[in-house]
Amino acid sequence: MTRDPGLASWLQLTLTPGLGAAAIRAMLRQFGLPHLVLVRKPSELAAYAAPSVLEALHSEMVRRAVDAALAWVEQPGNALVTLADATYPRMLLEIPDPPPLLYARGRTELLQRSALAVVGSRNATAQGAANAESFAKALSASGLTIVSGLALGIDAAAHRGGLAGPGSTIAVLGTGIDVIYPRTNAALTAQIVERGLLISEFPLGTGALASNFPRRNRLIAGLAQGCLVVEAALASGSLITARSAAEQGREVFAVPGSIHSPVSKGCHALIKSGAKLVESAEDVLGELGGFRASGFASTVQSAGVARASAEGAGAGLLEHMGHDPVDIDALCVRAGMSAEQVSSELLRLELAGRVAVLPGGLFQRLEKGAADG
Amino acid sequence: MTRDPGLASWLQLTLTPGLGAAAIRAMLRQFGLPHLVLVRKPSELAAYAAPSVLEALHSEMVRRAVDAALAWVEQPGNALVTLADATYPRMLLEIPDPPPLLYARGRTELLQRSALAVVGSRNATAQGAANAESFAKALSASGLTIVSGLALGIDAAAHRGGLAGPGSTIAVLGTGIDVIYPRTNAALTAQIVERGLLISEFPLGTGALASNFPRRNRLIAGLAQGCLVVEAALASGSLITARSAAEQGREVFAVPGSIHSPVSKGCHALIKSGAKLVESAEDVLGELGGFRASGFASTVQSAGVARASAEGAGAGLLEHMGHDPVDIDALCVRAGMSAEQVSSELLRLELAGRVAVLPGGLFQRLEKGAADG
Repeated sequence: MTRDPGLASWLQLTLTPGLGAAAIRAMLRQFGLPHLVLVRKPSELAAYAAPSVLEALHSEMVRRAVDAALAWVEQPGNALVTLADATYPRMLLEIPDPPPLLYARGRTELLQRSALAVVGSRNATAQGAANAESFAKALSASGLTIVSGLALGIDAAAHRGGLAGPGSTIAVLGTGIDVIYPRTNAALTAQIVERGLLISEFPLGTGALASNFPRRNRLIAGLAQGCLVVEAALASGSLITARSAAEQGREVFAVPGSIHSPVSKGCHALIKSGAKLVESAEDVLGELGGFRASGFASTVQSAGVARASAEGAGAGLLEHMGHDPVDIDALCVRAGMSAEQVSSELLRLELAGRVAVLPGGLFQRLEKGAADG
Repeated sequence: MTRDPGLASWLQLTLTPGLGAAAIRAMLRQFGLPHLVLVRKPSELAAYAAPSVLEALHSEMVRRAVDAALAWVEQPGNALVTLADATYPRMLLEIPDPPPLLYARGRTELLQRSALAVVGSRNATAQGAANAESFAKALSASGLTIVSGLALGIDAAAHRGGLAGPGSTIAVLGTGIDVIYPRTNAALTAQIVERGLLISEFPLGTGALASNFPRRNRLIAGLAQGCLVVEAALASGSLITARSAAEQGREVFAVPGSIHSPVSKGCHALIKSGAKLVESAEDVLGELGGFRASGFASTVQSAGVARASAEGAGAGLLEHMGHDPVDIDALCVRAGMSAEQVSSELLRLELAGRVAVLPGGLFQRLEKGAADG
């Protein structure tokens, strides 16, 4: 997507080992866009990262990694989407820890679609995989984009079902986007690149590390308005995705099964703790209709914006800012939003030049003319 | 149980065609015990029944039916339990329409036990029947009496499981207690008479009438602290039992299954509308522990009686009566109970001689000495 000269700066920040997404967002909030961070002296950045990390920021190793990523993004179909891009998924701005940069292969316009996560066990039963494909196909037919994790079993079936309809599918990887994992899904991966979308927040070449999958799962949940678990064992990654969805205020759905099936126990545990039991795509759509109205839309409306705004999710927050400097706590109270929501919307507004960062953790609204200038 | 001389009067009222349970309770409330109703002139009873019904009350046909029932109750193991008996199940006093008289065969002491209804489809799957027996066996082992309807399929399996443990089982019939229906369950019926309990509110000889089964289902639900549906189609009798349980404030439990199984659809519908999904007897017991504390016990406590009282469920209501005449509406407000609850407790207190019925729908508390005299 983005081909702006600042892209190298986004890559430089995100490819520096030891510099996490939270620290990057904090620096962006303080100093503005990445190239404005990078011109700061180490002493000014000391609050955000250890000296060794700040040293790495300008290292040869990072420079080479940036060059490799810039070369990668020149390939047809590849794209990088930054927090500052208009194409950055709005749903991800609502989660506590949005990644600063997404690697993407395929149809990035799918990031703007209403989406549903469909996840489940790698050790799915044949019936479970058939159910996943059937739910995903029907939901895709109704226009929902199916988000999953490209694992074997339920995930793969969900992607196949999504590809069969106009909603298509997004696969969120726990590896670098250039790493095909698992290999068994190579053919499916090729189909998704062609007709759907592959995304990852991990640097190119990142292998399959167990610790990265829970992070990946929060993105699967975060991209979607709800999360459907088709089959899952207790203590499985799918339950992490579902819990993440619930924590992010998304609806959780689960398909019931035999009380004697190990891969239904996770679904039953979810239903016991409040997930909606669903037997059909209609059940999901019925609940999601209500969710759309009461979830995302009402957040925007509570911020004072009744119309959909091309200015982005943070526009409503401006109405609560007046023109005097204000801190985040005050904005949370005024807008009735969490600190995470306010922070991410402020970041978006800063990057759009609508809000100025002042010393002492204060923020000030800028007039439209000033931002355009 | 009861061998008192008034038993013929209870039979006379309940065996009169056209005289329903509600009318009988209303007459008892107004005039006292059945023999006091029967000495009233037709003009005094005109508010409760049509002239033809009042004529039948003293007919030869009813007299013969009374004699037959009195002969039946002389047989070993047979019993009649009236609303006025201390052995009348307390849980049934809480339902809107408690039957004035129960026919019983077997261990009537089971009517005093904590009970759970376990019901489901006649067309159960083999796994469903095995599940029903397994749940019932484990719940009976924990001391709960299993209540069901002696139908084929889930009901029969539930009774078998109940018989295997100390909780044993109660079968509530939709026919006269001397009618074996369905015949296939004849051997099971014999076991239940020997080691459990068979009850019916219908006159001897009453055949299998479709219209009687929903009435029977309300008793199954009413006797129990909760209702577990193991397998059920949509629009089945089991769902009537479950709805009845929910309306009576009992907990409803349902066992999930495949979304492709017709006899799991009823269970899934129940879970969608608030029933607890359960996978094991432990799940039921866990919920029921909370239910016992918050359900029956708190009703009694809200009426001001913290201890279990041998004086019956209505004792707490006395504390709200003072000694001035009071009407039902005022008692509902004072005791925080529904009109149905207050009515049934008042009836019990009247029959126990603790409350006097005054003209104009007023009730007055009687001192213990007065009642004993």
